[in-house]
Amino acid sequence: MRILITGAAGMIGRKLLARLTADGALAGKPITAIDLHDIVAPTPPTGAAFTVKTHQGDLADPSAAEALVAAKPDVIFHLAGIVSGEAEANFDLGYRVNLDGARVLFDAVRAAKIAPRIVFTSSIAVFGAPFPAVIPDEFHLTPLTSYGTQKAIGEALLADYTRKGIFDGIGIRLPTIVVRPGKPNKAASGFFSGIIREPLNGLPADLPVSRDVVHTHASPRSAVGFLLHAAAIDGALVGPRRNLTMPGVGVTVGEQIAALRTIAGDKATALIREAPDAIVAKIVAGWPTRFDAKRARELGFTCEKSFAEIIQVYIDEELGGHIPH
Amino acid sequence: MRILITGAAGMIGRKLLARLTADGALAGKPITAIDLHDIVAPTPPTGAAFTVKTHQGDLADPSAAEALVAAKPDVIFHLAGIVSGEAEANFDLGYRVNLDGARVLFDAVRAAKIAPRIVFTSSIAVFGAPFPAVIPDEFHLTPLTSYGTQKAIGEALLADYTRKGIFDGIGIRLPTIVVRPGKPNKAASGFFSGIIREPLNGLPADLPVSRDVVHTHASPRSAVGFLLHAAAIDGALVGPRRNLTMPGVGVTVGEQIAALRTIAGDKATALIREAPDAIVAKIVAGWPTRFDAKRARELGFTCEKSFAEIIQVYIDEELGGHIPH
Repeated sequence: MRILITGAAGMIGRKLLARLTADGALAGKPITAIDLHDIVAPTPPTGAAFTVKTHQGDLADPSAAEALVAAKPDVIFHLAGIVSGEAEANFDLGYRVNLDGARVLFDAVRAAKIAPRIVFTSSIAVFGAPFPAVIPDEFHLTPLTSYGTQKAIGEALLADYTRKGIFDGIGIRLPTIVVRPGKPNKAASGFFSGIIREPLNGLPADLPVSRDVVHTHASPRSAVGFLLHAAAIDGALVGPRRNLTMPGVGVTVGEQIAALRTIAGDKATALIREAPDAIVAKIVAGWPTRFDAKRARELGFTCEKSFAEIIQVYIDEELGGHIPH
Repeated sequence: MRILITGAAGMIGRKLLARLTADGALAGKPITAIDLHDIVAPTPPTGAAFTVKTHQGDLADPSAAEALVAAKPDVIFHLAGIVSGEAEANFDLGYRVNLDGARVLFDAVRAAKIAPRIVFTSSIAVFGAPFPAVIPDEFHLTPLTSYGTQKAIGEALLADYTRKGIFDGIGIRLPTIVVRPGKPNKAASGFFSGIIREPLNGLPADLPVSRDVVHTHASPRSAVGFLLHAAAIDGALVGPRRNLTMPGVGVTVGEQIAALRTIAGDKATALIREAPDAIVAKIVAGWPTRFDAKRARELGFTCEKSFAEIIQVYIDEELGGHIPH
């Protein structure tokens, strides 16, 4: 089992790599080699029982993609991408990385005449308001950001290339992944993590939107679980509709904060400061709230049951199991 | 009012041009110039009260697109495309013309810093089976052909570029346009016209699918009506969901044939020969049957009420008002 991970230096890429290193296997088969790619140098894992090769560069460059697929991966995790806020601010960069990057990779796979499973991380940003109370799997994609548009196009290409037998793709629409460790990134969704992470570390956090905003979340651990399940799932069970909305926990920002209070007390929630940001609020207002994710659940994708569980995953994975403050 | 028409040598392009020439105006404004583009040389209209310039070439070539928008059109009708059967048979050509062609044109408009109304002809092939009995406007796009995929991607780009203020796009998903004049083309939907046109001209016609296939149609006259309405409509009324399913007449192939019998008798319908074609049948089975087109109807798009009316449009426009045989 040979694996390629694009966007390997990102948060989900690193957690996926750690899990694959610990497991030593994917879909029941021992891993023999992993290629890691990112625009910045990815960090190889320590103690891996398989060969690791790191690549740094621009994935939208056809020769880079060609070099990556030369190792004939059995599974490609295509995680690389420009985040929503940055894709909105930089139109050309977003299209180049998120659209051309995916297409160039898919075409390199086609030219190499290999037919790997490709797991593509899409996003719930493919949906755009107005929405029904719960979004069904058959709801149309009318993204209200360039990021969502680029992901929707990646999904369409993935499905068509899969239909043509060029590769075997599964697109997974991730809910917002919280609680992200480390520093804030440029994603418009960054505050959903910030209002939990910063207070747990004794730091203040800005809340740019209203507390009645409803949004759906899953932990980084669940995101890695989605990726592994998507890599192993029987494509015949999925059928021609290759892009699946992942399950998540749908809550208001107020409910997020209430869960934080239960776990870390008023001292933590007092660190959250109202800091309305019209640009972020406008982007978030165009995002979906709750959806049923019926197909994904039926296909065996699972996640946390409550937002408290999601906070606990952060405490366990990033804070060594206890709150420092 | 300056106009650019891509795909101007195609059936709909020629009929649109004839109508614009007769009207001399679009959206209530006199036409001063029309640029015509196609991969084959478009035929300029006779007796036009405006300047006509014809262009021949590959629209996916950025310099060609740049030259086309240099005339600063107020309205662009982007009709150019490779038809479904051909896009399915030639993967590279389909993506080059249908996806890259649209994107290169949109980017040329962006570079020229003009913000025209762009009317983009999409297709009901953006939908893929299985379907509800009547497809609502909110139904997801899961095309089962490369053509449908390319049109869905064009729609996504159109909506995002419009949202960003780069231009003012309206995408219209055409139902199958019948009765097409002239010879059969390579579209998998060609037989829907053939089984009416050929018998009306005393010629035999092959029927590659079952008579219980349900499909939705509109006449070429209605297609031109959709284009003109889309060019003139107030974009603010349309909102951010720029792609609209056009209305049509939903009938079985058997009902099409019954309408032909009513108009032209058993002599005509006897010319239809069962000639099952598994490839065509498979493509058609993935296409939608009926849809409500609620938004488009509310926005004032109109079409025929019955399939007999559609046949009559062909007789009026192409046969001088009477059946030759």
